[in-house]
Amino acid sequence: MKVGLAGLGTVGASVVRLLARRSDELAAACGRSIEVVAVSARDRQKDRGVDLSAVRWYDDPVALARDADIDVFVELMGGEGDPADAAVRAALSGGRAVVTANKALLARHGTELARLAEANSVSLSFEAAVAGGIPVVKTMREALLANRVDRVYGILNGTCNYILTRMEAEGLGFEECLAEAQRLGYAEADPTFDIDGFDAAHKLAILTSLAFGTEVDGEAVYVEGIRSIETADLDAADELGFRIKLLGVAIRAGDGIECRVHPTMVPKSSAIARIDGVLNAVAIDGDALGEIILVGPGAGGDATASAVIADLADIARGDTVPPMGRAAHRLEPYSRARMRRHAGGYYIRLSVADRPGAFAAIATRMAEKGISLESIVQRRRKAGENSRASGGDATVQPVFLVTHDTTEEAVREALAAIAADSVIATEPQVIRIERLDDTTPSAQREV
Amino acid sequence: MKVGLAGLGTVGASVVRLLARRSDELAAACGRSIEVVAVSARDRQKDRGVDLSAVRWYDDPVALARDADIDVFVELMGGEGDPADAAVRAALSGGRAVVTANKALLARHGTELARLAEANSVSLSFEAAVAGGIPVVKTMREALLANRVDRVYGILNGTCNYILTRMEAEGLGFEECLAEAQRLGYAEADPTFDIDGFDAAHKLAILTSLAFGTEVDGEAVYVEGIRSIETADLDAADELGFRIKLLGVAIRAGDGIECRVHPTMVPKSSAIARIDGVLNAVAIDGDALGEIILVGPGAGGDATASAVIADLADIARGDTVPPMGRAAHRLEPYSRARMRRHAGGYYIRLSVADRPGAFAAIATRMAEKGISLESIVQRRRKAGENSRASGGDATVQPVFLVTHDTTEEAVREALAAIAADSVIATEPQVIRIERLDDTTPSAQREV
Repeated sequence: MKVGLAGLGTVGASVVRLLARRSDELAAACGRSIEVVAVSARDRQKDRGVDLSAVRWYDDPVALARDADIDVFVELMGGEGDPADAAVRAALSGGRAVVTANKALLARHGTELARLAEANSVSLSFEAAVAGGIPVVKTMREALLANRVDRVYGILNGTCNYILTRMEAEGLGFEECLAEAQRLGYAEADPTFDIDGFDAAHKLAILTSLAFGTEVDGEAVYVEGIRSIETADLDAADELGFRIKLLGVAIRAGDGIECRVHPTMVPKSSAIARIDGVLNAVAIDGDALGEIILVGPGAGGDATASAVIADLADIARGDTVPPMGRAAHRLEPYSRARMRRHAGGYYIRLSVADRPGAFAAIATRMAEKGISLESIVQRRRKAGENSRASGGDATVQPVFLVTHDTTEEAVREALAAIAADSVIATEPQVIRIERLDDTTPSAQREV
Repeated sequence: MKVGLAGLGTVGASVVRLLARRSDELAAACGRSIEVVAVSARDRQKDRGVDLSAVRWYDDPVALARDADIDVFVELMGGEGDPADAAVRAALSGGRAVVTANKALLARHGTELARLAEANSVSLSFEAAVAGGIPVVKTMREALLANRVDRVYGILNGTCNYILTRMEAEGLGFEECLAEAQRLGYAEADPTFDIDGFDAAHKLAILTSLAFGTEVDGEAVYVEGIRSIETADLDAADELGFRIKLLGVAIRAGDGIECRVHPTMVPKSSAIARIDGVLNAVAIDGDALGEIILVGPGAGGDATASAVIADLADIARGDTVPPMGRAAHRLEPYSRARMRRHAGGYYIRLSVADRPGAFAAIATRMAEKGISLESIVQRRRKAGENSRASGGDATVQPVFLVTHDTTEEAVREALAAIAADSVIATEPQVIRIERLDDTTPSAQREV
C-alpha cells in the first residue's frame, strides 16, 4: 500500500520512522506492506532523522493528494482551512483513502468530508485526532456497536490537565504553572488554543458525532477555559471532596445534546479525578457495557504516530468503517441543548462584603430562584492574609457555596441579582459539578 | 449474516436481546443484518426473556456448528473440553467464523484453534474472553500494530478485586468478604476458579500471545491466588505506600517471557492501585505509544454480550484479523522465563520469635543471599491483642520487611534458611512488588 504523507513535523517523522521499524510486523498482520512513497513539507533540507532519499517530494500538498500512484493520503499539516482542507478533499475525490490527525479540520468540515469519503467509497480515518494514541475512535466506531451511548466525557487536553495538576499539587498560580508547562514543552508559546478550551472542544465535537450519530458541529460546543481557576478554588474543591478538571462532556439532555468544555468539579472518588499530568482519559457510558475509561498519552510524536499507523493498517487490511461509525447520509442533524437549561450542581465562590446582612441577601436571592444549598463554607481570613480570591480587599470575605441540582439559568439570574445588591466585591467564580459514579462495585457479576 | 448460538445463559440471552434491540444500527454500520437463526442449549423450556420462537433448536452444539445455513458460530458454553472444543473445531473446519467468550478453551487450545481458523480462512474472535466488555483484544490486535509491546498487566478478575477492595476498606477478613461476594453474586458457590487465580491466568495466557506474538500456553502461567492475604498485609501495605492487587503480568525478561498471576504490591500512586471493586483494568506498555490503560466492567451479561456483538460486527463488515494478531504459522514458541529468576522487590511478613538474637538471625540470612532491605517494620503488639498474623502466639511478633530488588531464588533460599533456624513461628507471607510508574507527567508534548 503506497502512502503519500503531507506534513513532516514531529508526528510525520515518527510515522516514517515507525513504518520502517515495524514493516515486517505490519506486512504480516495486514497481508501487504505499507510504504511511504511521496511526501510534502515546507523545508526539504531540514534533518528529520529519517531517510527520505527514496521518496518523491512535493511542494504542494494538494498535488501530492492527487498523485495517481498513492493509495492513501496522510494529512499531518493541521489547520481547519487550506491547504489541509483542499488536500484532503482532493484525495477523497480522487478515490484515495485519507488518514488525518487534524481535529480542527474535522470539527469544522467533518460531516462534508465523511460524505465525500462515502461518495467515493473510500475510508476517512482519524484516530490520532482525538486523545493522541489512545484508541478511542476505534473503540467508539467498532467496539460499542451494541450500545446506545448516553454520555461521553473526558480529559481531552494534556496541557490544561498538567497545569491544573501542578497548581493543585504545589499550590502555585495559573501563570506560574503555564510558564513551567511552556518550559517543558507541554504548552505552546501561544497557549490560547489549549488553555481556553478550543482544542478540547474540537475533540469533543468529533466524539459527539461518534457517540450520538449526529453531524459534526464544532461551533455548537460551549467552551470555557482554565484561566480563571485560582488556588482558592482548588483548595475549596479539596475541602469539599472534589478535584477540578477541564472536562469535555457530551450528554443527552431533555432538549437535545449538551456538548460542553469547562472546568468541572469531579468527585475525588471518581476515576477521572485521578488522571494527573499530561495524560488524557475518555469515559464512555454505553447502555449495555456500562462505563469504560481509556487512559493514556494524548500527545507526543510516537504516540500520535502509533494511532496514524493503526488507521493505515486497518485500511491495508481492507477494513471499511464509515468515518463517523454510521453511513454519512444517516447522520442526524446535531440538536444543541441550550446551556441555560443545563441541570446540575454548582460550586460558587463569592467575595462577600464583610457587613451585617450581606450573607442574608445572598441566601435570599438563591432561595428566590429555588436554589438550595448543599454546603456553605465561609472562611474567616487570618490576620494579615491578603487573598487574591477576595480581590485583596480586607473588608470582604470569600464564601464558597455548593448547590444542590439546579439550572444554569437559575444560577445566572441569582448571581445577577446578587451583583445588583452590591454585596459582592468581584465577579463570582462559577464551576459546574459533574455527578459521576465513584469506583465502588456496581456491575452485576454472573456465571 | 446468519448466526448459530450455543449456550443460552446470561450472556447468550443478552446477545439475542441486544442483537434484536440494535438491529437497525448494526445493519447500518455493517452493511448487512446480523440474525440469530439457530441455537443450542440444555433446556428448551426455560424462560430467558427473549423470543426464540423463530430459531432452529439443536440439542447438540456440534450439530449446530455444522449447520450449513449459518455463517458464524458463537460459542458461549464455556469449558476447556467438549462440547465447546469439538463444536468450535467443527465450525472452523466447516469454514464458519467463530466468536467465543471461552478463555479456558483458548488458554488450552488457542494456538491450534488459530491455526485451524487460518487453514480454513475464517475468523476466530474472542473479545469477550478477556476483561469482559473492555475492548482489550481489539486494541492489542489492531490499535497497537506500530508498537513492540514490552509488558501487559492488569486486574483480570473482578471477584478477587472486589474481595481485596472490601478487605482493605472495611478491615474484614478474607472469608467474610468472600461470603459477601457470594451473597452479591460476584463470586460463585465454588469460588476456586476465581479466588485461586486460574481465571486470571487463562486471560493472561491470551493477552501474552497477543502482546508478544507467541503461541498460547495456559500451562506456563505461574499462579498464586488471594486466599493467603490477611488484613495484616493490607494494613502493612497501606503503611508502606502500597495497595495489594491480584495482578496478571506478562513481561519480557532476560531468559524468556515472565507470565504470572499473584497478589502484588503496587504503589498507591499508580493508576492500577486505584481500580476498585469488580472493575477490570488492563495496562499495555508499547514502545511507541507509552502506557495505555483500559478500565471497565470485566463481567456481566450485557457487558460481555457487547463484546460478542462487536466481534460479530467486525465479521459482518468483512474485517479479517488473524486471531492472535499475526498469522498463526508465524506465532513463536512460548519461551517461559523461570520464576526463580524473577527480579524485583519483595514484601515479607514473618512471625518472629520474641527472643534475643531472632532478628539478627533473620538479617544475617538475608545478607548471606545478598538481599538488602528497603524498610523494616516491627510492630510491638498491644497488650491483649491476639493477632492472626502472628499465629495467635503471644511469644511471637510480626515483622514486615521490604527488600530492594533481588531475585525470587534469593528470597526463597533465605526464607528456607530462616525457617531452618527456627526463629519464625509460621509460614512467611511473601508478596511481590511491581514497580510501576506513578501518574505524574512523563510523556513529552510537542506541537
